[in-house]
Amino acid sequence: MSARQDTDMASVDMEKRAHADHHASLRLWLRLLSATTRIEDTIRQRLREQFGITLPRFDLMAQLEREPQGLSMSELSRRMMVTGGNVTSIVDQLEKEQLVQRQMQASDRRSYTVSLTEAGRSAFAAMAQAHEGWVVELLSPLVASQQEQLHKLLGTLKSGSPTNSEETK
Amino acid sequence: MSARQDTDMASVDMEKRAHADHHASLRLWLRLLSATTRIEDTIRQRLREQFGITLPRFDLMAQLEREPQGLSMSELSRRMMVTGGNVTSIVDQLEKEQLVQRQMQASDRRSYTVSLTEAGRSAFAAMAQAHEGWVVELLSPLVASQQEQLHKLLGTLKSGSPTNSEETK
Repeated sequence: MSARQDTDMASVDMEKRAHADHHASLRLWLRLLSATTRIEDTIRQRLREQFGITLPRFDLMAQLEREPQGLSMSELSRRMMVTGGNVTSIVDQLEKEQLVQRQMQASDRRSYTVSLTEAGRSAFAAMAQAHEGWVVELLSPLVASQQEQLHKLLGTLKSGSPTNSEETK
Repeated sequence: MSARQDTDMASVDMEKRAHADHHASLRLWLRLLSATTRIEDTIRQRLREQFGITLPRFDLMAQLEREPQGLSMSELSRRMMVTGGNVTSIVDQLEKEQLVQRQMQASDRRSYTVSLTEAGRSAFAAMAQAHEGWVVELLSPLVASQQEQLHKLLGTLKSGSPTNSEETK
Protein backbone atom coordinates (compact mmCIF):
# COMPACT_ATOMS: atom_id res chain seq x y z
CA MET A 1 0.00 0.00 0.00
CA SER A 2 1.45 3.38 -0.98
CA ALA A 3 1.87 6.26 1.50
CA ARG A 4 -0.70 8.16 -0.54
CA GLN A 5 -3.30 5.43 -0.10
CA ASP A 6 -2.47 5.32 3.59
CA THR A 7 -3.11 9.04 3.95
CA ASP A 8 -6.35 8.82 2.02
CA MET A 9 -7.63 6.03 4.20
CA ALA A 10 -6.61 7.80 7.38
CA SER A 11 -8.40 10.89 6.15
CA VAL A 12 -11.55 8.94 5.32
CA ASP A 13 -11.39 7.36 8.78
CA MET A 14 -11.03 10.79 10.38
CA GLU A 15 -14.03 12.06 8.48
CA LYS A 16 -16.12 9.06 9.42
CA ARG A 17 -15.07 9.50 13.01
CA ALA A 18 -15.82 13.24 12.93
CA HIS A 19 -19.20 12.54 11.39
CA ALA A 20 -20.00 9.94 14.06
CA ASP A 21 -18.83 12.34 16.79
CA HIS A 22 -21.03 15.10 15.36
CA HIS A 23 -24.04 12.86 15.46
CA ALA A 24 -23.13 11.79 18.99
CA SER A 25 -23.01 15.45 20.07
CA LEU A 26 -26.37 16.11 18.48
CA ARG A 27 -27.91 13.05 20.14
CA LEU A 28 -26.42 14.17 23.48
CA TRP A 29 -27.86 17.66 23.06
CA LEU A 30 -31.32 16.30 22.25
CA ARG A 31 -31.16 14.02 25.30
CA LEU A 32 -30.00 16.89 27.53
CA LEU A 33 -32.81 19.08 26.22
CA SER A 34 -35.50 16.42 26.63
CA ALA A 35 -34.38 15.40 30.15
CA THR A 36 -34.45 19.04 31.28
CA THR A 37 -37.75 19.80 29.56
CA ARG A 38 -39.41 16.72 31.05
CA ILE A 39 -38.41 17.68 34.60
CA GLU A 40 -39.27 21.35 34.10
CA ASP A 41 -42.70 20.46 32.67
CA THR A 42 -43.44 18.20 35.65
CA ILE A 43 -42.47 20.96 38.11
CA ARG A 44 -44.51 23.51 36.15
CA GLN A 45 -47.56 21.25 36.22
CA ARG A 46 -47.30 20.46 39.94
CA LEU A 47 -46.83 24.13 40.88
CA ARG A 48 -49.98 24.94 38.93
CA GLU A 49 -52.04 22.04 40.31
CA GLN A 50 -50.92 22.17 43.94
CA PHE A 51 -50.26 25.88 44.43
CA GLY A 52 -52.06 27.59 41.54
CA ILE A 53 -48.86 29.39 40.59
CA THR A 54 -46.92 29.66 37.32
CA LEU A 55 -43.25 28.71 37.07
CA PRO A 56 -42.09 32.28 36.25
CA ARG A 57 -43.93 33.58 39.34
CA PHE A 58 -42.31 30.88 41.48
CA ASP A 59 -38.88 31.72 40.02
CA LEU A 60 -39.39 35.43 40.72
CA MET A 61 -40.38 34.75 44.34
CA ALA A 62 -37.30 32.49 44.66
CA GLN A 63 -35.09 35.40 43.57
CA LEU A 64 -36.71 37.71 46.13
CA GLU A 65 -36.49 35.13 48.90
CA ARG A 66 -32.69 35.31 48.68
CA GLU A 67 -32.71 39.11 49.04
CA PRO A 68 -34.57 40.28 52.15
CA GLN A 69 -33.58 43.87 51.28
CA GLY A 70 -35.43 43.57 48.00
CA LEU A 71 -34.26 43.98 44.42
CA SER A 72 -34.61 46.78 41.90
CA MET A 73 -36.74 45.96 38.86
CA SER A 74 -33.67 46.05 36.59
CA GLU A 75 -31.74 43.63 38.81
CA LEU A 76 -34.78 41.37 39.03
CA SER A 77 -35.13 41.41 35.23
CA ARG A 78 -31.46 40.57 34.83
CA ARG A 79 -31.73 37.62 37.19
CA MET A 80 -34.91 36.32 35.60
CA MET A 81 -33.41 36.57 32.12
CA VAL A 82 -36.77 37.52 30.69
CA THR A 83 -37.88 40.82 29.23
CA GLY A 84 -38.58 43.73 31.58
CA GLY A 85 -42.20 43.69 30.43
CA ASN A 86 -42.78 40.18 31.72
CA VAL A 87 -41.20 40.90 35.09
CA THR A 88 -43.38 43.99 35.51
CA SER A 89 -46.55 42.03 34.83
CA ILE A 90 -45.53 39.22 37.22
CA VAL A 91 -44.76 41.75 39.97
CA ASP A 92 -48.11 43.47 39.32
CA GLN A 93 -49.96 40.17 39.79
CA LEU A 94 -48.03 39.20 42.92
CA GLU A 95 -48.52 42.68 44.40
CA LYS A 96 -52.27 42.42 43.83
CA GLU A 97 -52.22 39.19 45.85
CA GLN A 98 -50.13 40.93 48.52
CA LEU A 99 -47.27 38.45 48.13
CA VAL A 100 -44.73 41.13 47.14
CA GLN A 101 -44.44 44.84 47.86
CA ARG A 102 -42.86 47.77 46.02
CA GLN A 103 -40.87 50.25 48.09
CA MET A 104 -39.53 53.61 46.95
CA GLN A 105 -35.74 53.82 47.07
CA ALA A 106 -34.53 56.54 49.47
CA SER A 107 -31.63 57.35 47.12
CA ASP A 108 -33.73 57.69 43.98
CA ARG A 109 -37.41 58.39 44.38
CA ARG A 110 -38.17 57.53 40.77
CA SER A 111 -37.16 53.89 41.23
CA TYR A 112 -38.21 51.25 43.75
CA THR A 113 -37.26 47.87 45.10
CA VAL A 114 -39.47 44.78 45.21
CA SER A 115 -39.47 42.39 48.16
CA LEU A 116 -41.60 39.55 49.54
CA THR A 117 -44.25 40.46 52.08
CA GLU A 118 -44.58 38.31 55.20
CA ALA A 119 -47.44 36.47 53.49
CA GLY A 120 -45.27 36.04 50.40
CA ARG A 121 -42.39 34.69 52.45
CA SER A 122 -44.54 32.10 54.16
CA ALA A 123 -46.35 31.10 50.95
CA PHE A 124 -42.99 30.70 49.23
CA ALA A 125 -41.55 28.58 52.07
CA ALA A 126 -44.33 26.01 51.61
CA MET A 127 -43.85 25.94 47.83
CA ALA A 128 -40.05 25.74 48.07
CA GLN A 129 -40.27 22.73 50.38
CA ALA A 130 -42.59 20.89 47.98
CA HIS A 131 -40.41 21.93 45.04
CA GLU A 132 -37.28 20.53 46.69
CA GLY A 133 -39.08 17.24 47.32
CA TRP A 134 -40.13 17.00 43.66
CA VAL A 135 -36.57 17.67 42.49
CA VAL A 136 -35.22 14.98 44.83
CA GLU A 137 -37.85 12.56 43.49
CA LEU A 138 -37.29 13.43 39.81
CA LEU A 139 -33.51 13.03 40.10
CA SER A 140 -33.74 9.86 42.20
CA PRO A 141 -33.11 7.46 39.30
CA LEU A 142 -29.50 8.58 39.77
CA VAL A 143 -27.79 7.49 42.99
CA ALA A 144 -25.73 10.08 44.91
CA SER A 145 -22.43 9.20 43.22
CA GLN A 146 -24.03 9.48 39.77
CA GLN A 147 -25.57 12.82 40.68
CA GLU A 148 -22.12 13.99 41.71
CA GLN A 149 -20.67 12.77 38.40
CA LEU A 150 -23.39 14.58 36.47
CA HIS A 151 -22.79 17.76 38.51
CA LYS A 152 -19.09 17.68 37.63
CA LEU A 153 -19.68 17.00 33.93
CA LEU A 154 -22.13 19.90 33.72
CA GLY A 155 -19.57 22.07 35.55
CA THR A 156 -16.95 21.21 32.92
CA LEU A 157 -19.47 21.91 30.17
CA LYS A 158 -20.24 25.31 31.68
CA SER A 159 -16.67 26.32 32.45
CA GLY A 160 -15.84 25.71 28.80
CA SER A 161 -12.42 24.27 29.53
CA PRO A 162 -11.91 20.77 28.09
CA THR A 163 -8.65 20.56 30.06
CA ASN A 164 -10.55 20.14 33.31
CA SER A 165 -11.38 16.60 32.25
CA GLU A 166 -9.45 14.98 35.12
CA GLU A 167 -11.95 16.42 37.56
CA THR A 168 -14.82 14.40 36.17
CA LYS A 169 -13.17 11.01 36.39
CA MET B 1 -23.27 4.52 75.00
CA SER B 2 -26.77 3.00 75.15
CA ALA B 3 -28.42 1.45 72.16
CA ARG B 4 -31.00 4.22 72.40
CA GLN B 5 -28.35 6.94 72.08
CA ASP B 6 -26.82 5.05 69.20
CA THR B 7 -30.11 5.02 67.35
CA ASP B 8 -30.70 8.72 68.03
CA MET B 9 -27.30 9.66 66.70
CA ALA B 10 -27.67 7.48 63.66
CA SER B 11 -31.02 9.08 62.99
CA VAL B 12 -29.58 12.61 63.32
CA ASP B 13 -26.78 11.62 60.95
CA MET B 14 -29.31 10.25 58.47
CA GLU B 15 -31.27 13.47 58.60
CA LYS B 16 -28.18 15.60 58.10
CA ARG B 17 -27.19 13.38 55.24
CA ALA B 18 -30.65 13.53 53.71
CA HIS B 19 -30.69 17.30 54.05
CA ALA B 20 -27.27 17.61 52.38
CA ASP B 21 -28.42 15.20 49.63
CA HIS B 22 -31.56 17.27 49.08
CA HIS B 23 -29.50 20.38 48.64
CA ALA B 24 -27.16 18.52 46.29
CA SER B 25 -30.14 17.43 44.15
CA LEU B 26 -31.44 20.98 44.01
CA ARG B 27 -28.01 22.32 43.04
CA LEU B 28 -27.73 19.64 40.37
CA TRP B 29 -31.15 20.53 38.98
CA LEU B 30 -30.30 24.24 38.82
CA ARG B 31 -27.04 23.42 37.05
CA LEU B 32 -28.81 21.11 34.58
CA LEU B 33 -31.39 23.80 33.90
CA SER B 34 -28.84 26.59 33.44
CA ALA B 35 -26.55 24.51 31.19
CA THR B 36 -29.48 23.59 28.95
CA THR B 37 -30.93 27.09 28.90
CA ARG B 38 -27.55 28.62 28.04
CA ILE B 39 -27.07 26.32 25.04
CA GLU B 40 -30.68 26.69 23.89
CA ASP B 41 -30.48 30.49 24.11
CA THR B 42 -27.28 30.53 22.05
CA ILE B 43 -28.87 28.34 19.38
CA ARG B 44 -32.03 30.46 19.40
CA GLN B 45 -29.99 33.65 18.97
CA ARG B 46 -27.84 32.26 16.13
CA LEU B 47 -30.87 30.90 14.24
CA ARG B 48 -32.42 34.36 14.44
CA GLU B 49 -29.26 36.25 13.48
CA GLN B 50 -27.99 33.95 10.75
CA PHE B 51 -31.21 32.57 9.29
CA GLY B 52 -33.92 34.94 10.52
CA ILE B 53 -35.89 32.00 11.92
CA THR B 54 -37.32 31.29 15.36
CA LEU B 55 -36.46 28.13 17.30
CA PRO B 56 -40.06 26.74 17.20
CA ARG B 57 -40.13 27.18 13.40
CA PHE B 58 -36.78 25.40 13.12
CA ASP B 59 -38.04 22.59 15.36
CA LEU B 60 -41.21 22.21 13.30
CA MET B 61 -39.23 22.01 10.06
CA ALA B 62 -36.94 19.42 11.71
CA GLN B 63 -39.99 17.27 12.48
CA LEU B 64 -41.19 17.51 8.87
CA GLU B 65 -37.74 16.78 7.47
CA ARG B 66 -37.92 13.30 9.04
CA GLU B 67 -41.29 12.60 7.41
CA PRO B 68 -41.21 13.07 3.63
CA GLN B 69 -44.83 11.84 3.49
CA GLY B 70 -45.87 14.73 5.71
CA LEU B 71 -47.60 14.80 9.09
CA SER B 72 -51.13 15.52 10.16
CA MET B 73 -51.60 18.66 12.25
CA SER B 74 -52.47 16.58 15.31
CA GLU B 75 -49.36 14.43 14.99
CA LEU B 76 -47.24 17.54 14.43
CA SER B 77 -48.74 19.14 17.56
CA ARG B 78 -48.01 16.04 19.57
CA ARG B 79 -44.41 15.95 18.47
CA MET B 80 -43.89 19.66 19.07
CA MET B 81 -45.43 19.40 22.54
CA VAL B 82 -46.97 22.85 22.17
CA THR B 83 -50.61 23.80 21.83
CA GLY B 84 -52.34 23.18 18.53
CA GLY B 85 -52.84 26.92 18.16
CA ASN B 86 -49.14 27.61 18.11
CA VAL B 87 -48.47 24.90 15.56
CA THR B 88 -51.21 26.28 13.30
CA SER B 89 -49.72 29.76 13.38
CA ILE B 90 -46.19 28.46 12.67
CA VAL B 91 -47.48 26.39 9.74
CA ASP B 92 -49.37 29.45 8.44
CA GLN B 93 -46.19 31.53 8.46
CA LEU B 94 -44.06 28.84 6.84
CA GLU B 95 -46.71 28.22 4.19
CA LYS B 96 -46.78 31.92 3.34
CA GLU B 97 -43.02 31.72 2.76
CA GLN B 98 -43.57 28.58 0.64
CA LEU B 99 -41.36 26.47 2.91
CA VAL B 100 -44.15 24.03 3.81
CA GLN B 101 -47.30 22.91 2.01
CA ARG B 102 -50.67 21.60 3.16
CA GLN B 103 -52.13 18.63 1.27
CA MET B 104 -55.60 17.22 1.59
CA GLN B 105 -55.70 13.63 2.84
CA ALA B 106 -57.28 11.28 0.30
CA SER B 107 -58.89 9.25 3.11
CA ASP B 108 -60.45 12.19 4.93
CA ARG B 109 -61.01 15.34 2.94
CA ARG B 110 -61.60 17.42 6.07
CA SER B 111 -58.04 16.90 7.31
CA TYR B 112 -54.67 17.46 5.67
CA THR B 113 -50.98 16.70 6.04
CA VAL B 114 -48.15 19.22 6.16
CA SER B 115 -44.82 18.60 4.47
CA LEU B 116 -41.71 20.56 3.47
CA THR B 117 -41.65 22.01 -0.04
CA GLU B 118 -38.48 21.61 -2.12
CA ALA B 119 -37.49 25.15 -1.07
CA GLY B 120 -38.21 24.25 2.57
CA ARG B 121 -36.14 21.12 2.33
CA SER B 122 -33.13 22.93 0.93
CA ALA B 123 -33.47 25.87 3.39
CA PHE B 124 -33.67 23.41 6.26
CA ALA B 125 -30.60 21.46 5.09
CA ALA B 126 -28.46 24.61 5.33
CA MET B 127 -29.82 25.48 8.78
CA ALA B 128 -29.45 21.92 10.07
CA GLN B 129 -25.81 21.82 9.04
CA ALA B 130 -25.06 25.09 10.85
CA HIS B 131 -27.09 23.90 13.86
CA GLU B 132 -25.09 20.67 14.11
CA GLY B 133 -21.84 22.66 14.01
CA TRP B 134 -23.05 24.91 16.84
CA VAL B 135 -24.02 21.92 18.97
CA VAL B 136 -20.61 20.32 18.40
CA GLU B 137 -18.94 23.61 19.38
CA LEU B 138 -21.13 24.22 22.45
CA LEU B 139 -20.54 20.69 23.78
CA SER B 140 -16.81 20.71 22.95
CA PRO B 141 -15.69 21.50 26.54
CA LEU B 142 -16.47 17.82 27.11
CA VAL B 143 -14.17 15.33 25.37
CA ALA B 144 -15.79 12.34 23.61
CA SER B 145 -15.54 10.00 26.63
CA GLN B 146 -17.16 12.62 28.88
CA GLN B 147 -19.95 13.18 26.38
CA GLU B 148 -20.55 9.44 26.39
CA GLN B 149 -20.64 9.43 30.21
CA LEU B 150 -23.12 12.32 30.21
CA HIS B 151 -25.26 10.54 27.60
CA LYS B 152 -25.43 7.43 29.79
CA LEU B 153 -26.22 9.35 32.98
CA LEU B 154 -29.04 11.20 31.22
CA GLY B 155 -30.30 7.87 29.90
CA THR B 156 -30.45 6.49 33.44
CA LEU B 157 -32.20 9.66 34.60
CA LYS B 158 -34.77 9.30 31.83
CA SER B 159 -35.37 5.58 32.19
CA GLY B 160 -36.20 6.22 35.83
CA SER B 161 -34.61 3.01 37.04
CA PRO B 162 -31.93 3.54 39.69
CA THR B 163 -30.99 -0.11 39.31
CA ASN B 164 -29.44 0.56 35.90
CA SER B 165 -26.55 2.25 37.67
CA GLU B 166 -23.95 -0.24 36.52
CA GLU B 167 -24.36 0.97 32.98
CA THR B 168 -23.02 4.42 33.75
CA LYS B 169 -19.79 3.37 35.41
